[in-house]
Amino acid sequence: MTNQRVPVLVGISNTSFIESIKLAHFAADIGADALVLSPPYYFPLGQQEFIEYVQAMTVELPLPVYLYNIPSMTKVNIEVDTLRRVLDIEKIIGFKDSSGNMTSFHELIKLCEQRENFALLMGQEELLAEAVLFGAKGAVPGGANLFPRLFVDLYDAAKEKNIKKICELQKRLFELRKLYSCGQYASTFIKGVKCALELKGICSGYIAEPFRAFQQAEKDKIQEILSRIS
Amino acid sequence: MTNQRVPVLVGISNTSFIESIKLAHFAADIGADALVLSPPYYFPLGQQEFIEYVQAMTVELPLPVYLYNIPSMTKVNIEVDTLRRVLDIEKIIGFKDSSGNMTSFHELIKLCEQRENFALLMGQEELLAEAVLFGAKGAVPGGANLFPRLFVDLYDAAKEKNIKKICELQKRLFELRKLYSCGQYASTFIKGVKCALELKGICSGYIAEPFRAFQQAEKDKIQEILSRIS
Repeated sequence: MTNQRVPVLVGISNTSFIESIKLAHFAADIGADALVLSPPYYFPLGQQEFIEYVQAMTVELPLPVYLYNIPSMTKVNIEVDTLRRVLDIEKIIGFKDSSGNMTSFHELIKLCEQRENFALLMGQEELLAEAVLFGAKGAVPGGANLFPRLFVDLYDAAKEKNIKKICELQKRLFELRKLYSCGQYASTFIKGVKCALELKGICSGYIAEPFRAFQQAEKDKIQEILSRIS
Repeated sequence: MTNQRVPVLVGISNTSFIESIKLAHFAADIGADALVLSPPYYFPLGQQEFIEYVQAMTVELPLPVYLYNIPSMTKVNIEVDTLRRVLDIEKIIGFKDSSGNMTSFHELIKLCEQRENFALLMGQEELLAEAVLFGAKGAVPGGANLFPRLFVDLYDAAKEKNIKKICELQKRLFELRKLYSCGQYASTFIKGVKCALELKGICSGYIAEPFRAFQQAEKDKIQEILSRIS
């Protein structure tokens, strides 16, 4: 589908070691470019346990891999010193940080400068600009599914250190982010993005179990927010 | 293996709806007696979302099911009112609570009295006695894999409301629980039980990835604790 225009990264995170490896090989077989791996997310791992997990997992992977820190889901924060201890594994080509902690992100920036061909990526879109401003290679913003131009502009403004432009674009970003709070639960982010994608005609609003698509009341809110920012 | 001497319950919790159903059918096919289901544990569910999940899931299940509340792993606490709203589903035959919250457990006891053929089970072994004392049908204690007699005696003492006996047995229970803190991480509980099982000759100490069995230093500690309580 992408016709090599952009790299395709496939998430292989799983509570089962063998299922991650199976999915990695499936992804490689159908032409994926790289993998994304977060800590197993049922029973929480200690830092040393995660290091051993990464060491054992990377040996088995058929593609390069990005490590993915999302403690809100995995209950495990990948600490800066933990990344330091696996940074010599060449198959690891990047780190996506969705912790939202800019204090440790500044430490990550310094650390990742020590490795060639390594991409430190910001996972929280509202922190994209400052992350790139201080040295991150890029970001993985959920909202870019809806408004890719805005995020590319924000990235470019940060690369140019154009603070005035960043502030203008961030105003639009914070308008967009209202899409994420139309529902009641933690899933409101996913539901909001999916609903907006459907209203923009990009894809179906279907959401896999255990979640359900927004109903009409929330759909109307999403439509109203979209009409203000489009 | 059990030759019908005891019922076999199979956990089917998964982040994927369809994988839970597949596992439930596999369990039924090989002779399991009932299933155990906790909320999907990656993206946290709201209470209403969990209710809809349970409603959709139970329709598909080939066996009766126990709901399992373990917020430390799932990030979702199944609230008393949530259980109330699914309590009319006959296929649900019990509730295991590992939240450790005795305040809500007392409310659960009152609630579950409204249903026939329903087992409220305590998931925290150190609260087994008081749970049974006030009306729980039983418990699911990890330590019973090692010392089943102790837990049966504790249950019996609680049924007889023999507080003196309970206190004596709980002293032994708290000695046993030292097995759970020989390692460094949250996994120390699993590792301790598995290591003790191996040392008692009950099964291999192997632990599935991403975890590893205790090494000699921790094994020695486990042996020492076992020798004091056996």
